[in-house]
Amino acid sequence: MVKKIAGVLGATGSVGQRFILLLNEHPDFELKYLGASKRSSGKKYSDAVNWKQTDLLPDFAKDIIVSECDPAYFKGCDVVFSGLDADYAGEIESSFKDNGFAVVSNAKNHRREENVPLIVPIVNIDHLDILPKHDKKGFIVCISNCSTAGLVAPLKPLVEKFGPIDALSTVTMQAISGAGFSPGVPGIDILDNIIPYIGGEEDKMEWETKKILGSISQDQSHIKLLTDDEIKVSAQCNRVAVTDGHTECIALRFQNRPAPSVDQVKQALEEYVCDAYKLGCHSAPKQTIHLLEQNDRPQPRLDRNRDNGYGVSVGRVREDPLLDYKMVVLSHNTVIGAAGAGILIAECLLAKNLI
Amino acid sequence: MVKKIAGVLGATGSVGQRFILLLNEHPDFELKYLGASKRSSGKKYSDAVNWKQTDLLPDFAKDIIVSECDPAYFKGCDVVFSGLDADYAGEIESSFKDNGFAVVSNAKNHRREENVPLIVPIVNIDHLDILPKHDKKGFIVCISNCSTAGLVAPLKPLVEKFGPIDALSTVTMQAISGAGFSPGVPGIDILDNIIPYIGGEEDKMEWETKKILGSISQDQSHIKLLTDDEIKVSAQCNRVAVTDGHTECIALRFQNRPAPSVDQVKQALEEYVCDAYKLGCHSAPKQTIHLLEQNDRPQPRLDRNRDNGYGVSVGRVREDPLLDYKMVVLSHNTVIGAAGAGILIAECLLAKNLI
Amino acid sequence: MVKKIAGVLGATGSVGQRFILLLNEHPDFELKYLGASKRSSGKKYSDAVNWKQTDLLPDFAKDIIVSECDPAYFKGCDVVFSGLDADYAGEIESSFKDNGFAVVSNAKNHRREENVPLIVPIVNIDHLDILPKHDKKGFIVCISNCSTAGLVAPLKPLVEKFGPIDALSTVTMQAISGAGFSPGVPGIDILDNIIPYIGGEEDKMEWETKKILGSISQDQSHIKLLTDDEIKVSAQCNRVAVTDGHTECIALRFQNRPAPSVDQVKQALEEYVCDAYKLGCHSAPKQTIHLLEQNDRPQPRLDRNRDNGYGVSVGRVREDPLLDYKMVVLSHNTVIGAAGAGILIAECLLAKNLI
Amino acid sequence: MVKKIAGVLGATGSVGQRFILLLNEHPDFELKYLGASKRSSGKKYSDAVNWKQTDLLPDFAKDIIVSECDPAYFKGCDVVFSGLDADYAGEIESSFKDNGFAVVSNAKNHRREENVPLIVPIVNIDHLDILPKHDKKGFIVCISNCSTAGLVAPLKPLVEKFGPIDALSTVTMQAISGAGFSPGVPGIDILDNIIPYIGGEEDKMEWETKKILGSISQDQSHIKLLTDDEIKVSAQCNRVAVTDGHTECIALRFQNRPAPSVDQVKQALEEYVCDAYKLGCHSAPKQTIHLLEQNDRPQPRLDRNRDNGYGVSVGRVREDPLLDYKMVVLSHNTVIGAAGAGILIAECLLAKNLI
Repeated sequence: MVKKIAGVLGATGSVGQRFILLLNEHPDFELKYLGASKRSSGKKYSDAVNWKQTDLLPDFAKDIIVSECDPAYFKGCDVVFSGLDADYAGEIESSFKDNGFAVVSNAKNHRREENVPLIVPIVNIDHLDILPKHDKKGFIVCISNCSTAGLVAPLKPLVEKFGPIDALSTVTMQAISGAGFSPGVPGIDILDNIIPYIGGEEDKMEWETKKILGSISQDQSHIKLLTDDEIKVSAQCNRVAVTDGHTECIALRFQNRPAPSVDQVKQALEEYVCDAYKLGCHSAPKQTIHLLEQNDRPQPRLDRNRDNGYGVSVGRVREDPLLDYKMVVLSHNTVIGAAGAGILIAECLLAKNLI
Repeated sequence: MVKKIAGVLGATGSVGQRFILLLNEHPDFELKYLGASKRSSGKKYSDAVNWKQTDLLPDFAKDIIVSECDPAYFKGCDVVFSGLDADYAGEIESSFKDNGFAVVSNAKNHRREENVPLIVPIVNIDHLDILPKHDKKGFIVCISNCSTAGLVAPLKPLVEKFGPIDALSTVTMQAISGAGFSPGVPGIDILDNIIPYIGGEEDKMEWETKKILGSISQDQSHIKLLTDDEIKVSAQCNRVAVTDGHTECIALRFQNRPAPSVDQVKQALEEYVCDAYKLGCHSAPKQTIHLLEQNDRPQPRLDRNRDNGYGVSVGRVREDPLLDYKMVVLSHNTVIGAAGAGILIAECLLAKNLI
Repeated sequence: MVKKIAGVLGATGSVGQRFILLLNEHPDFELKYLGASKRSSGKKYSDAVNWKQTDLLPDFAKDIIVSECDPAYFKGCDVVFSGLDADYAGEIESSFKDNGFAVVSNAKNHRREENVPLIVPIVNIDHLDILPKHDKKGFIVCISNCSTAGLVAPLKPLVEKFGPIDALSTVTMQAISGAGFSPGVPGIDILDNIIPYIGGEEDKMEWETKKILGSISQDQSHIKLLTDDEIKVSAQCNRVAVTDGHTECIALRFQNRPAPSVDQVKQALEEYVCDAYKLGCHSAPKQTIHLLEQNDRPQPRLDRNRDNGYGVSVGRVREDPLLDYKMVVLSHNTVIGAAGAGILIAECLLAKNLI
Repeated sequence: MVKKIAGVLGATGSVGQRFILLLNEHPDFELKYLGASKRSSGKKYSDAVNWKQTDLLPDFAKDIIVSECDPAYFKGCDVVFSGLDADYAGEIESSFKDNGFAVVSNAKNHRREENVPLIVPIVNIDHLDILPKHDKKGFIVCISNCSTAGLVAPLKPLVEKFGPIDALSTVTMQAISGAGFSPGVPGIDILDNIIPYIGGEEDKMEWETKKILGSISQDQSHIKLLTDDEIKVSAQCNRVAVTDGHTECIALRFQNRPAPSVDQVKQALEEYVCDAYKLGCHSAPKQTIHLLEQNDRPQPRLDRNRDNGYGVSVGRVREDPLLDYKMVVLSHNTVIGAAGAGILIAECLLAKNLI
């Protein structure tokens, strides 16, 4: 099979660096184009980047000449991954879309547009079906916020099996890698400390959940959100001294009575197989949700890399005095919550003949 | 004024060490007796203890000869502070009580006895009124669990002003100092990690809240708990990489409709003055609840020492999509949540002529 | 006694904030002037600053109107503390000096000028004697680099007693608070990590040691450095996950043979009383060097606050197979290594009638 | 090829767990026997172990029945890996040796015996040549102390090229995983802290270096240590808040004058290929020493996994004012410093027909 040609926008940033790592020796994609700011353009990537990953900069990327983030430089590119900052993503991604490119973006700018699918690729890749098929019209697909990804992963099988969830709360303990590194979270703010606030995050989680759990409109043109009457969502977000892996303490109530039993809930989580895996996508997790029975798990350091970070771990499923159930969810924020999700989304786009 | 004579049980442990620090140059108490295990008894305290506090071992305590935890060795002692492990506390504390001693205990063993007040001294020192007066009958007063202390502190003024709270959830992020040090939380378990479980803690929080917010029986003989119908409490407890200071993300609903406004809630928190301060107790916080308006506060490293750790900080008071309000609470677990609470309780006992 | 009038330059930065804290209720100084960048000038200090200290912003400072760092705005100021960044400190401090002010600076810019004393106030306040007396000629005194302060503290009594040290090595493990907070050390760089490099630090330590251990020229006009022949100094600097307190593993060789015994070395350290204390300076440590005999001390979290951070802790004094002795030194980098040193220097200036 | 049969002693401990992980799908060895304490014997391994690795317990090991550490239960075993605590290792390992087994031990007990090779497998596998060949006489091979491994790795190529090193100093910053987990380093001791002491470690480093850099006696019967006259070694050891990876700041002096240039030193490090790699051993690093030129590297979080942890990273090679050169060395303490070294040693034994 001929590999699809890929490009990365915002290639020197933290999300961009991870796109590059994940595209190294990828069976479906060949990374040819790297876009960054004017300051970096014209340089070899290895000269432009301050590489800060635990894996070495792959050889294939070292000599790619960085260009500006202009569609003119990305000729023939089948898919463009955007790790751009929100300050630039809105306009640049639109210009790529308008020029016929398929854009998979980690930025928040276009997430709320009704004809832009907001995708957690282990949850709702059916939403990709609203995208234009068989022609050269460009489109944008958005990756969800990192903490939303972990939240909705266990909800999907539960809603499928037991019907709507009408109340949902989450308190997050989020890793610092999610904040990028220029400057990200200052060390003095996070060592021996917690920051009980992440700007905009709670609102994103509460809103995005309603879109991701929403449905396709009858005319297949857009996504219909769950309404505030259908589901109430409350999020409280904290930054903690963890490098990678977002932990969430969630509680939920089903609309239907009687609620399923705790064993039914666990079984549904464990048996869930995401559509991306059924489609045979390369990065899709074999086990979407790892149900852990030890009472002190999941833990970020021990469990964040299940299925290369594409699997989500759920533990401590138990009854809740207020709602129906509470549980602890762990997801790898830079994999299923950011760049990794983008790669898997692109694999799904390919499997669905959308690129 | 003649100082009251004090003793400490479990003097070499982490709670015992803090009792000793807090009794250094205390205006009301003179520490004369130190009890520990057989292994330590007969030794000078400075030889028996592996001192691990940030403040130096006070000179006055160095030469006290450690005895076993037997009432026979504590003659003339007006108040006995117990930092004993739960393995030993039950029986030893009972024997002190039976021998006429006033015991202030940090252990969990006697907390559920209906004639034992369970006290957070900035919240419910009125519960001390069930204790026997003017005679030599001994009694036990229990300090609450550390995470319960932070939870109930802001509830007290809210209930006083706006009536009952009927639903309450908390997700805690607890410091490691609460786990003591033999061995406490292993470093490899907490560095770059979260442990989403603390044995017994959630149950304690859910139960203790109902006792602390409960009321004195008509015959003044015991504490009546709030019932499960009166208040539903859900707790999820996590251990995080913080040395001192428990952070809690709480949400609550008032029984009465309409609920108070957010400004009324804030005002009630800020204006609250605890009874211990009104009684003039030495350690009572001038400002019981520090209401913080910056959106990223309270933070444990920055805010845990308000009013020497006896004040509780509350921030991010805002409406909650599920219940009425959510907020972040920070309390110093070794002060208002453990040894410090014990000292302030004893000060209250003295002010109330109970010792 | 009438208090001297003080000002702070760079008042909104991390060093500036600590100057303000230390000047709160200071017996010798009254802080009246705060200088910062154009952006802050004209604002009340509480509006201009992003306060990030564990102690609250003192009331007295809240309403001071911040001015630009121009001598015209500091009329009548007896001493000016500079927490300016090196980018601005050079020129601004010179202009204050030229206008007759006494400047105590934490910046590196003027440290190498031969008529500028470079002072660790528990080590070499005799060097202040080169400053102009009894007239209104301005001067600059420089605070040493934070890691240099800890290094030279134990050397002083050893050189006094046993003669010159001719070889000295140090490997530092430095706290992140020393890096300020805009942005300082990124969290992702320091959590579960070490950064084995601090720009310029090793060179500073190697050079500054030679000036601080140097002597006053015969004409009392400048400081004569130790030469490379007199002392060889090797420094390796690391940033570690510690909030406050620099730990250094040092080794040293005396020039004179036979070298003193290990007990003599310990005794010299323990008996050392710094001149600032002899002069009765308010902040001077009662015990300059805390000699610790437990084999696992000093530790930054437990020992950094000895004598309010003005005392230096030394442990593990033992023979070294290469040089004569090795030991571990701990100093509080923001107290004796930065703002705190500045305050104590000013107290010494006052005691010596230099302001 | 038929795989050799392997056993693990101390299988439930932290080193034992890592042996099991590393033997999962190993091309040379098949793990059949697991030995542990009486308490665990008779249980399935998955029931006996508190598994605390970031990789899941391999399926193959789950159902192995744990036996006691008695040679009688290890019939037919070609190599026995010992992760036993020092309290038990001495006697048990001797009994295996006496019964004709090849033992590769991580314990310290037998390291100082002159006919026991002390091996860092990227440094001195020629020392294995003193072992008995072609018969069934058992033997013990010892893995070096974890911090010694990182220290001697860069020394080997330097000594080979430029002759003896006569002075060597190291200051270590060691990860907590090296301390095991029962209890290992307490969290409260390492968070926001450094422990400037590791019991016995400095002595081990100073002594083991002399054995590892020593030579085989003429009669090939034992290892001759370097004498104190030949090399002076000084070690200072610290425990820091890092999960994995020991960082060392080392300095060294060559005996021969003139010393090689810094470029010659770097070239020797970079060109070094360890014997284990030349022998084709499966786990041997392709690049033994990763020479890093960025001034802030190596860093444990970023660099500890080079060549799966079998490669050692060296950075900041520069001249030293006291000795000749200083540099920063990073090695993965649980791989090349412990269990991983054991596996590579066994591969070398196989390649040399010693098992």
